[in-house]
Amino acid sequence: MSDINPILSGSAESIAAYQDAIEQSTKAVVQWLQQPEMYQGKTVEQLRERINLDFTSQGLGNQVAIERAVEYFLKDSLSVHHPQCVAHLHCPSLVISQAAEVLINATNQSMDSWDQSPSATIIEVKLIEWLREQVGYTAGDSGVFTSGGTQSNLMGLMLARDAFFARQGHSVQQNGLTGNLSKIKVFCSENAHFSVQKNMALMGLGYQSVTLVKTDEFSRMDVSDLADKLAQAKANGEQVLAIVATAGTTDAGAIDPLTEIVALAEKEQIWVHVDAAWGGALLLSEKYRHYLDGLELADSVTLDFHKQYFQTISCGAFLLKDARHYQLMRYQAAYLNSDFDEEQGVPNLVSKSLQTTRRFDALKLWMGLEALGKKQYAEIIDNGVTLAQQVAEFVSAQPELELVMQPQLASVLFRFRPGQGDTAFVALLNQRIGDALLASGAANVGVTEADGVTCLKLTLLNPVVNLADVKVLLASVTACGQQLLNA
Amino acid sequence: MSDINPILSGSAESIAAYQDAIEQSTKAVVQWLQQPEMYQGKTVEQLRERINLDFTSQGLGNQVAIERAVEYFLKDSLSVHHPQCVAHLHCPSLVISQAAEVLINATNQSMDSWDQSPSATIIEVKLIEWLREQVGYTAGDSGVFTSGGTQSNLMGLMLARDAFFARQGHSVQQNGLTGNLSKIKVFCSENAHFSVQKNMALMGLGYQSVTLVKTDEFSRMDVSDLADKLAQAKANGEQVLAIVATAGTTDAGAIDPLTEIVALAEKEQIWVHVDAAWGGALLLSEKYRHYLDGLELADSVTLDFHKQYFQTISCGAFLLKDARHYQLMRYQAAYLNSDFDEEQGVPNLVSKSLQTTRRFDALKLWMGLEALGKKQYAEIIDNGVTLAQQVAEFVSAQPELELVMQPQLASVLFRFRPGQGDTAFVALLNQRIGDALLASGAANVGVTEADGVTCLKLTLLNPVVNLADVKVLLASVTACGQQLLNA
Repeated sequence: MSDINPILSGSAESIAAYQDAIEQSTKAVVQWLQQPEMYQGKTVEQLRERINLDFTSQGLGNQVAIERAVEYFLKDSLSVHHPQCVAHLHCPSLVISQAAEVLINATNQSMDSWDQSPSATIIEVKLIEWLREQVGYTAGDSGVFTSGGTQSNLMGLMLARDAFFARQGHSVQQNGLTGNLSKIKVFCSENAHFSVQKNMALMGLGYQSVTLVKTDEFSRMDVSDLADKLAQAKANGEQVLAIVATAGTTDAGAIDPLTEIVALAEKEQIWVHVDAAWGGALLLSEKYRHYLDGLELADSVTLDFHKQYFQTISCGAFLLKDARHYQLMRYQAAYLNSDFDEEQGVPNLVSKSLQTTRRFDALKLWMGLEALGKKQYAEIIDNGVTLAQQVAEFVSAQPELELVMQPQLASVLFRFRPGQGDTAFVALLNQRIGDALLASGAANVGVTEADGVTCLKLTLLNPVVNLADVKVLLASVTACGQQLLNA
Repeated sequence: MSDINPILSGSAESIAAYQDAIEQSTKAVVQWLQQPEMYQGKTVEQLRERINLDFTSQGLGNQVAIERAVEYFLKDSLSVHHPQCVAHLHCPSLVISQAAEVLINATNQSMDSWDQSPSATIIEVKLIEWLREQVGYTAGDSGVFTSGGTQSNLMGLMLARDAFFARQGHSVQQNGLTGNLSKIKVFCSENAHFSVQKNMALMGLGYQSVTLVKTDEFSRMDVSDLADKLAQAKANGEQVLAIVATAGTTDAGAIDPLTEIVALAEKEQIWVHVDAAWGGALLLSEKYRHYLDGLELADSVTLDFHKQYFQTISCGAFLLKDARHYQLMRYQAAYLNSDFDEEQGVPNLVSKSLQTTRRFDALKLWMGLEALGKKQYAEIIDNGVTLAQQVAEFVSAQPELELVMQPQLASVLFRFRPGQGDTAFVALLNQRIGDALLASGAANVGVTEADGVTCLKLTLLNPVVNLADVKVLLASVTACGQQLLNA
């Protein structure tokens, strides 16, 4: 049953097979898009029983393989474009992103050397230059596309660490960490992404190196606590190698006071990395761009385009203010970036990246900006922020719902709050509402904690969603809560 | 010009836009596949001048954006499927991989929590179980898909480091590195991938922690030198936290003697990580599976499916022999893997991964195995290994060419060797042959060094390529060399 030539190439046979395979899978996607349910509702156990791997010797051929992928994968996928799918920072994607993926995957360019991605390398470099302009950095090309925010944050922390040691005349890349490591700290807020802890552990400094700064009532870093803790660290003989500010915390969407944080950091020559994986979307905003004031002062920035830029996964970027810091991580491989090539001015992206083989994700952002234009891109980003404000107002007016925090980006934290039960009871009830809605296939809302309060979360990225859709969802939440109470 | 609704969804308007965009981009791919040239030959400077970013306010719409991507990106892409495109470990891709990408990108599932990827999570877990079987590990699901070999190697080294410290009662994840770090070493061969150095630097131990073991005449780790260096390390009070063996070095395709390395490591309780990013393809081989004997003894393994498994970038995996070691990197986030969910048996892949948001790359391998079957997959993998042997024989018989090393996997190292000139002259000549061929658009051969000798490299992954194609390429190399000599 298998094809004689399964490789994508210019042969007539391969082209026919390619056209058939794309047509069949595209048709299947169209059918799936029209499924009314957000999710078919199968449990983990049901999926485990249903999906079995038993690969044949002779192969099933493309057509059957696609049919089976539709049956076992596609039909039981979560519809991220569904108006009731609002649990996570997980976006529906642009149509143009799908076309970009066709080009990315057919060409399979690899960004680790120019001779594996000639035009792609130049487009990525130019897009990094453009992104730097949006942030307010000086002209230059210091930055790279990444697999996502966690990796971008890792690059920022690694360069902060190595710049810190370099100022003391020590090369971490060459010689490793040295001295009393328990005195070396990174500061971030209690609401920063867990990748700060994971990355510091990976980098050999442990969770213990992370000092959590208190947050205010809107989950933003409390600058007076930051000042106190910096002073305290100094008194304790601790050294702070970086402050990670967040522009868009995962749950509350809080944006730390960037300008004030940089002002404090500058006094002590501390690197500021801004995790703007979510909030970086406001770079394109017409209404809310000023929320990011101060971003241009940061030493490095994380951006993620597979969040509120509506690109398919993966699509992230890391930007570095001062090009000289890239020298800290420079490593040479004869077959990728030889001295000879560098003298010839051949671009060398592998030296700027923690990945080696790397996909041309930048194309998606480029084509998105071309197709939509800046105005429409701004509109679909602003939509979520404005909608969250409207939803919060509506939630506040519902007797059975309680707004847990005023929204800042495109999320709403709230809970079902019946007139009965203690904190633990209400927490479990809200957890069960979330699970029941997902199990029914009707909706996916987030369940999380804000200041120790278990609550529900709506992440309103989807620009197709309007207040009426959210009202339907909130009615389901209330109905489900009542049902669980009466059960 | 921009669309009213640019988001992929079930609306009639979105579906029509999606179908149009896929059709237009697929047609463009088909035209590009039929371009006879491997590359249009533009220089870095020409591309820099040609490609300009000037995004409009109103947007160009999908159709024009795709046209422009074809003009500026696609036409000047490198044709990785071209028979003369053999510079790197950079593969042409399967037709079925393209169909899988259509499903991956339309659904945009994210693997960091089950409720963002219900069926996808289960398929990935089952495929990890299947890969463990192929390696010869015990039943289990310890492993995860990664963005590629560099990241998989990082996971192996990080867990090796943390297991080493854990045996001394110290948690690196919690408390960071401690003690005299300059005494902590990782061993790998001189021909191991540079990600060992880059990853050790990232992990805070520096390039200095990497002890390079000599290689034999086939670029394989010299086990007697390994034994000597281990003894010497002991005598110096050094501690070895891991040996990284390579199954398929980047240039020579050398496979280190895995069984002997593990035997030495076991005596000293040293973690063995095998970087099988390339050689792991032989797991599916009918003829050469035995090259990987001993892989099942390693503590962790890197596999890469965007190399000789012919999947599009990104597609890699990390496998961990002993599930308990995954506890070393466990971190909890309320909104992704709550205690509540874990008690309910909900799979939790974010705890096994260095990424958070992560694409469903596993689907490509699953669909590839289904479509091709094990036999045809074996054939297209074995093709390259056998072809390299034939090419080596042919090269040896050519008076103007010199075989630099006997092939082991699917690469051939050789050089153009005229009757005149010293080593530096011949080195520069071969570098110039490589550059001239790429500039002409006719071929892309690798330029690298083997034991200090600058040479050319053919990486013969492409199963569509046969000996006749390679003879054409070698004739171009010789003609180009002669021309440069006579210039």
